[in-house]
Amino acid sequence: MYHGGYMGRILRLDLTNQTYKTEALPVEMARNFVGGTGFVLKLLFDEVPYGIDALGPSNKLIIAPGPLTGTESPCSSRMAYAAQSPLTGAVGMALSGGHFPAQMKFAGYDVLVIEGRAASPVYVWINDDQVSFRRAERLWGMNTLDCQVFIKEEVREQNARIACIGPAGERLARIACIINERRAAGRKGLGAVMGSKNLKAIAIHGTQQVPVADRQQFSDARSGLLKLFKDTPSVYGGLSKVGTSECIDVTCALGIFPAMNYSRTGEFEPADKVGSEAQFRDTIRRTACHNCPVACSQVRLARDGPYAGFLTEGPEFESSWAFSGATGVDYLPALYAADRLCDELGLDTMSTGMTIAFAMELYERGILTQEDTGGLDLRFGNHEAMIRLIQQIAYRQGFGSVLADGARQAAARIGRGSEKYVMHIKGLELPGYDVRGAKAHGLSYATTYVGADHNRGYAAQEIFGARIPVAVDRFAIGGKAELCKWNQDMKMALCDCPTFCAFLLTAGALLDPAPQGLSQADTEARIVTVTDMLASATGLPFTPAEIARVGERVNVLGRAFNAREGFNRKDDYLPDRLTNEPLKAGASKGQRTGRKDQDYMLDRYYELYGYDQNGIPTRKRLVDLGLDNAAKVLEHMGLLSP
Amino acid sequence: MYHGGYMGRILRLDLTNQTYKTEALPVEMARNFVGGTGFVLKLLFDEVPYGIDALGPSNKLIIAPGPLTGTESPCSSRMAYAAQSPLTGAVGMALSGGHFPAQMKFAGYDVLVIEGRAASPVYVWINDDQVSFRRAERLWGMNTLDCQVFIKEEVREQNARIACIGPAGERLARIACIINERRAAGRKGLGAVMGSKNLKAIAIHGTQQVPVADRQQFSDARSGLLKLFKDTPSVYGGLSKVGTSECIDVTCALGIFPAMNYSRTGEFEPADKVGSEAQFRDTIRRTACHNCPVACSQVRLARDGPYAGFLTEGPEFESSWAFSGATGVDYLPALYAADRLCDELGLDTMSTGMTIAFAMELYERGILTQEDTGGLDLRFGNHEAMIRLIQQIAYRQGFGSVLADGARQAAARIGRGSEKYVMHIKGLELPGYDVRGAKAHGLSYATTYVGADHNRGYAAQEIFGARIPVAVDRFAIGGKAELCKWNQDMKMALCDCPTFCAFLLTAGALLDPAPQGLSQADTEARIVTVTDMLASATGLPFTPAEIARVGERVNVLGRAFNAREGFNRKDDYLPDRLTNEPLKAGASKGQRTGRKDQDYMLDRYYELYGYDQNGIPTRKRLVDLGLDNAAKVLEHMGLLSP
Repeated sequence: MYHGGYMGRILRLDLTNQTYKTEALPVEMARNFVGGTGFVLKLLFDEVPYGIDALGPSNKLIIAPGPLTGTESPCSSRMAYAAQSPLTGAVGMALSGGHFPAQMKFAGYDVLVIEGRAASPVYVWINDDQVSFRRAERLWGMNTLDCQVFIKEEVREQNARIACIGPAGERLARIACIINERRAAGRKGLGAVMGSKNLKAIAIHGTQQVPVADRQQFSDARSGLLKLFKDTPSVYGGLSKVGTSECIDVTCALGIFPAMNYSRTGEFEPADKVGSEAQFRDTIRRTACHNCPVACSQVRLARDGPYAGFLTEGPEFESSWAFSGATGVDYLPALYAADRLCDELGLDTMSTGMTIAFAMELYERGILTQEDTGGLDLRFGNHEAMIRLIQQIAYRQGFGSVLADGARQAAARIGRGSEKYVMHIKGLELPGYDVRGAKAHGLSYATTYVGADHNRGYAAQEIFGARIPVAVDRFAIGGKAELCKWNQDMKMALCDCPTFCAFLLTAGALLDPAPQGLSQADTEARIVTVTDMLASATGLPFTPAEIARVGERVNVLGRAFNAREGFNRKDDYLPDRLTNEPLKAGASKGQRTGRKDQDYMLDRYYELYGYDQNGIPTRKRLVDLGLDNAAKVLEHMGLLSP
Repeated sequence: MYHGGYMGRILRLDLTNQTYKTEALPVEMARNFVGGTGFVLKLLFDEVPYGIDALGPSNKLIIAPGPLTGTESPCSSRMAYAAQSPLTGAVGMALSGGHFPAQMKFAGYDVLVIEGRAASPVYVWINDDQVSFRRAERLWGMNTLDCQVFIKEEVREQNARIACIGPAGERLARIACIINERRAAGRKGLGAVMGSKNLKAIAIHGTQQVPVADRQQFSDARSGLLKLFKDTPSVYGGLSKVGTSECIDVTCALGIFPAMNYSRTGEFEPADKVGSEAQFRDTIRRTACHNCPVACSQVRLARDGPYAGFLTEGPEFESSWAFSGATGVDYLPALYAADRLCDELGLDTMSTGMTIAFAMELYERGILTQEDTGGLDLRFGNHEAMIRLIQQIAYRQGFGSVLADGARQAAARIGRGSEKYVMHIKGLELPGYDVRGAKAHGLSYATTYVGADHNRGYAAQEIFGARIPVAVDRFAIGGKAELCKWNQDMKMALCDCPTFCAFLLTAGALLDPAPQGLSQADTEARIVTVTDMLASATGLPFTPAEIARVGERVNVLGRAFNAREGFNRKDDYLPDRLTNEPLKAGASKGQRTGRKDQDYMLDRYYELYGYDQNGIPTRKRLVDLGLDNAAKVLEHMGLLSP
């Protein structure tokens, strides 16, 4: 029995019949999966049948904040979404912050499960215990910002928080995202899942308090955490000041800022033009998620030139990169405009930027011509074409209709040998770290259950020189499987389940940034702090060892889902370019990650996780972790090694 | 002594010194000028010196709702702004609705007087008695919608209401407007006045009640008024349903929908493509000003094509016309996009549309070429060029820098005989009624103290066939001076001072729409209803005769202001095209308003108002109306006839 942290309820919404019901949150689910990503993956595996059409009514959209969300814990207003990804066919999991997660707890729910498909557009309005399905024909076609204004007025509750899709999601673009406030659950095409269900938006408002089991212990742990923030220069000195834009400077300096669809990394490093200093000059305010003292989010404004007036919250590093490095653009106002448009239209900035970058490479190589692009001059660096394409993608207009489902699908449509220029893993376009120069980071891209995602096992050791659990040489192969697993499990355990903001982990409040030189004991004390918060909030006796095991359990479950859908070792490799082409310039010059190196790391990684040589979890491992249902399903499918 | 309606206070804000003070509202000002336009013109005349630079620190921006604003009176959340107009040099008066006017009363003020010039950008935050000047460097460059979101967050008051300028006002475009919510104080360049003062925004919030002197009498009068609304089919049948878009159908049917800079009226009548039925199909909701049961404002959304996703509140008739008839565009989504962009950028839709229309005519005549326009193909009907120019105008970029100060200034820059194609009166671009086919309406354009404004003496008798005070032939000249004066004075008395929405007057709730056939006595009873509301709200013994006299007084004072600034009879004529070129097609074919007809009407109009033959008020008339200060000033300037 838990005594706090959780609201104790799952809200199940059936769009087909426009009915809903609440269910008790099982306490063993709380113990074994904690919340957030743990909850949504558990329900995704158990409830979504295998082999479905991700854009059909059998897919489910599942949303969960964690037990810390909505409490006084700083930086905990995060929530995980999951569905089968229409972009990859693998797990479609993405996280978002802002105020919606806390508001969902205040409304009394730990999990939303959205099922079926409405016959015509609807939105759902959840006001504490009152749930209604409202017609949304009139909202269909609205951008995400107008939509939020409109719904707040319609439900007459300015404090409601709204997660919604834009035109891209409505048109089932497989790179569409979900926007709440100005935050995105960006990747894996979850916006298209909402669109396929005729669900324009989820509006939520609540008035309840999130109970806390042991207020004194909780308050002490919280003070400890806030002190850690203060003691970590990169939190208030870096994140608060310039947000994640500093990563542009860092990746350029390391020679891993991927340039022009990964074809020119190290040769195009526009940190002076689009990096943190330049962006800081355009910053007009900082904003924060619910109850976050860091306020890393930056509002930036283009004041002059053709994009004057474009204001955007962010852009985060990855968005900045997607519309600069990836596409060869070094014009900051265009980057703001692209970010704002993606938010309005409901497009994932990363997949959008990389899909445009892919098209640009084809154009530069003569595989595409202006005849194909409807007259667009798709040379790298042409920001006007980039902006135009973003709009076309969202509406599936012109050449945008070829790109709206991501780079891999675009290649399938274009043919002509274009598929070799798709930079993806498991169908998900690569992020903004050229992992030829960061091997553990690359192994995480290759192995994580959602495809090439930078944030499921971020190797801060390689990017920022963090020394916990070990200091590493970023070019080395040895020990990287161990590091990758540690990063993946810790991220899951400390951030994605409780829930807690990833930036604090990577910025060094939980890990060790090099300049500080904390001991491993110091860091373990930090992990204990999070564990203490979880235990004191919920009244459940979580320990550091136990939550580390939760992290492992959820990661293994994600892989089991993918195994079910046909994924295995063949899907765990980097694109050919990263395997075969050494970087030609910059601080990582000469680096590539050859097939042998990848196999070496994969073998060790599988061994550590208890997967077989094909990358499938073994029965023993699944049962050990309490994932009996997964074992049963994989066995039934004949996937388990004896 | 008044006992209600008024809050009794003027708030004076000195931007130069960033100080403020409150003053008691003089009771004789309340008696003689009622409120709204009466107040702002009174203070404009008394406090702004003559011969100033309208964009210099000596100009003042004065804002006043009326005594009914913020009470339970329906349709009374209106406010008047005044300054010397930087577009015309004449009175710059414009009205706006929404929620700001009521909120200003709730904060405790009848008038805001904004003086001087801040050294760097500021906004003013008025929260009941607390007034602060806040730095706005960071807001400079924001569009009006983002700006409102930003300020609400910054002052932590979601119920604050904000009037602000966009990039156009910041750049002192003389066709810039002020936006509150999604409403505009559109015409006469008041946005540039705010810009010249380095004032980005005024944010206001209040918690007070507007007192009402005699609640029972007030409640009875209010019930009577609401019953009138119900009994008038055009209110809930027309305004509530399709807003003012119906005027497109009406003016096309009458052959007075001005086409292509007034060069093709009667030949281009796209009511089927952009009229009320087409717009109704795109309407996704209705919105209302504070405490208005009519909710005439329509939110419309472009769903497909190149402008998909553009959502706009409105467009009102005049905006619809400015971006269709005026520019020869018949593509509805472009019209929505233009309206939205003007709102965001802070541009007057009417002056913007007509200034673009002017440039288009020059282009069609070969006076401008693509060399002048920076490559823009400015043929009538080219909506892409229209949209591009709107953005360029707001930022003074490219050819937009030539147009940003309105058509007359553009002609001065272009030369080459272009001035004959400027359709303006007193520098204000013409509205969307070709008054060759509506003579009293035209006389009002010619004579009103703000230039060619359709709404200072709207001749509903000619447009809608209203029969009060008399039924008229719209092509006739006889009796039109009398009708024009009645319309101008009644509008001022019943709407612009108390304040009360003009649409209710023109839609027939106060005047008589033809289908109903009310008697004059019925209409007079309606006027009594408004008078009763004023009297019962304020405790001042207003009578119908007295408020009619207020209407006359304020109109004469407006003319006295203009006389002071050098305006006289020469400025009271229609453009040559309307004088000399008969309409070539449509239901007003053959109509023009020759010089002799204009002189005939002007002579009679001057006589009725007590102006001399040069259109200057006589001393006797000024003194009769209690405008002694005006008499003194004009005498001092040697302008008064003996």
